[in-house]
Amino acid sequence: MADTEGTAPGRRQVLRGLAGVGLGGIGGIGAGLVLGSRGARGAESGSAEPGDTGTPEAPGPVPVHGATQAGVDRPGTPQRHGSIAVLDLDAATTAAEMLALCADLGTLITALTTATSPPHPALPDGPGDLTITVGLGPRLVRLLGPDLPGAEDLPAFAGDTELDPSHSGGDLFLAAYSHDPNDADTALTEVSDAVGHGVLRWAQRGFRAHGTGTVARNPLGFHDGVIVPRGEEELAEHVWLPDGPAAGGTIAVVRRLRVDTATFRAEPVPDRERVIGREHATGAPLSGGGPMDEVDLLAKTPEGEFRIPARSHARAAHPSFTGSHLMLRRGYAFDNGRTPDGVADAGLLFICFQRDLRTFAATQHRLDEVDDLMTYVTTTASATFLVLPGFDAEHPLGATLG
Amino acid sequence: MADTEGTAPGRRQVLRGLAGVGLGGIGGIGAGLVLGSRGARGAESGSAEPGDTGTPEAPGPVPVHGATQAGVDRPGTPQRHGSIAVLDLDAATTAAEMLALCADLGTLITALTTATSPPHPALPDGPGDLTITVGLGPRLVRLLGPDLPGAEDLPAFAGDTELDPSHSGGDLFLAAYSHDPNDADTALTEVSDAVGHGVLRWAQRGFRAHGTGTVARNPLGFHDGVIVPRGEEELAEHVWLPDGPAAGGTIAVVRRLRVDTATFRAEPVPDRERVIGREHATGAPLSGGGPMDEVDLLAKTPEGEFRIPARSHARAAHPSFTGSHLMLRRGYAFDNGRTPDGVADAGLLFICFQRDLRTFAATQHRLDEVDDLMTYVTTTASATFLVLPGFDAEHPLGATLG
Repeated sequence: MADTEGTAPGRRQVLRGLAGVGLGGIGGIGAGLVLGSRGARGAESGSAEPGDTGTPEAPGPVPVHGATQAGVDRPGTPQRHGSIAVLDLDAATTAAEMLALCADLGTLITALTTATSPPHPALPDGPGDLTITVGLGPRLVRLLGPDLPGAEDLPAFAGDTELDPSHSGGDLFLAAYSHDPNDADTALTEVSDAVGHGVLRWAQRGFRAHGTGTVARNPLGFHDGVIVPRGEEELAEHVWLPDGPAAGGTIAVVRRLRVDTATFRAEPVPDRERVIGREHATGAPLSGGGPMDEVDLLAKTPEGEFRIPARSHARAAHPSFTGSHLMLRRGYAFDNGRTPDGVADAGLLFICFQRDLRTFAATQHRLDEVDDLMTYVTTTASATFLVLPGFDAEHPLGATLG
Repeated sequence: MADTEGTAPGRRQVLRGLAGVGLGGIGGIGAGLVLGSRGARGAESGSAEPGDTGTPEAPGPVPVHGATQAGVDRPGTPQRHGSIAVLDLDAATTAAEMLALCADLGTLITALTTATSPPHPALPDGPGDLTITVGLGPRLVRLLGPDLPGAEDLPAFAGDTELDPSHSGGDLFLAAYSHDPNDADTALTEVSDAVGHGVLRWAQRGFRAHGTGTVARNPLGFHDGVIVPRGEEELAEHVWLPDGPAAGGTIAVVRRLRVDTATFRAEPVPDRERVIGREHATGAPLSGGGPMDEVDLLAKTPEGEFRIPARSHARAAHPSFTGSHLMLRRGYAFDNGRTPDGVADAGLLFICFQRDLRTFAATQHRLDEVDDLMTYVTTTASATFLVLPGFDAEHPLGATLG
């Protein structure tokens, strides 16, 4: 942004340097900082009665500071509950005001996610594994600089015929995740309330199925999010913005996808498997192997048919067709009950992260063309955001963009 | 019920005898039956990366068979997710058809909650800690016998001014609970689909905060459900129907309570504490002691004011005022997003169990009169059900009522 460009020349350099420390190191420091009351509570609950499955011990703290924000790749297994909100800022908000807001949000986020003795008043049991992530919509990014990553709007998609303009786009993305649904929602409220001149566009609570690592069953009951970048090298290659003022940031796409699970589940299992391209029971690709094995797009049956069907989701979504990078997925299921018309408003709160908006856009264009799964899906909200680079006590949230 | 009364004279005696075995014994038998694939999955996820809070190991099976149904007092710590449905049966359904349906549901419930090798096709990862509970509404109970427990309708309450008749009452209560939201919802769908001639009245998904044992923070952020029956003796005294054809059953009250958490949370903490009668941070009664200590309704400040305020929830809901039994609470939070009018439709899916409908009714009448908390609460669904006695492979669900 022109009017503050260069006002904090040192910060950017420092944060770039910080990026080189690597997540492992920062995580190691942060992990020792917090001794929550959660641990004690978890231990208390060991007095199980017969038939009592017990209360799983609450997970520990997630480092808030670092080269990247929490809630993207850390914790590695997404927390069980999330609450997100998309807000608009007053049209007259200046870039300087926006950056001041980001800095304030970073301070609040640090307080909410690290305070234990005493805990933050809003989270009297301590933060647990709470993370809060902040992203800026294209309009705000363009205020900072028209060539910055994230300045580009999400393109229109052929399948988004029922998308209401009030649920398309938006200025500010706030996402709070926790093993505890109250904590995520409370934290989101605290951070939303701190946004002066902000108007809520839409909000959504989500929850995750219990899965193995990052792979959980989606609302259709199938394994999803299998082909994702794993490990620091792949994340650096596919997810994090590599250099410039947004280094350590990433481009998020957030879409609320209503899924007609009732119709889908009424199909016989083999038909459902052909729509997905994976086995229902195991998650293995229909081309064979285990659930984490590569999909073999060329494998054919003795009759000469593709084992991964031509219009299956596994084939349509495969990155090889778009020549694009991988996306890091961090989706949640949602369920808002029924609309006044009696339609079940439940499905997937799709959230992905990538270096380049094109990674998502090319994939979605392809899905709209050749993915039979899309016939069960209605997009009810859609937006892209620049997830800001990481921050710490010395380097405010958003500072490198100033 | 007149037309089948006495057709299975032996069953009732046998089940009555079974009730004497006690839950501990039956739980002990049942617990050894099931070796789920969940355990293996939980173990797999131990390969945590830095910053990874890990996937908590999936909890083990809950005995489905016994003198009482699962999902009331077992598991002792309610599962994290639940999906409930209230259905109406065709008005022409006979008592015999209804009992046949109950028996079929019991068989299906056994299959869903115990099948592991192979798992039930709908639950390919095994049942985990899934429980499914069945209750009959007053109309159906009266078909079986007008004097049976549960034949009485829930009375009208002064605070239920916005309750729609479509969400009041109902014939059949189905509740599926699991640590996994997909499993609970899938199981509920399977059981609902098995109800021929059933029409869905309303359904709701719920989730629980992470708490200690049965006490978790409610959607207002306060500890709730503290004064409840604990241990077999208190459950026998307050919850389970003691003898007769419904022995081992219990009277459930299910109410969906929209709570205006935004307005409540905007109040200063001390004001919120006075509405609840407990400390926000610790859950301790304002009369002193720890969170699990008894509320001292007589304690006064040096200025002569009740420490538990006159119109606080802790005082209003205290069983000493109604001279009633205790209720076993098993509530879930819910969040349906916003209504078309922009009202946040979230709050508490209140579920309680007691021997006598009067226990709940007397308490609710009192709350409507003297509980300031009720000003934040709108009842959007309300019903009572006879939760059927327990069952096993030899003694079908509902058989003692025939």
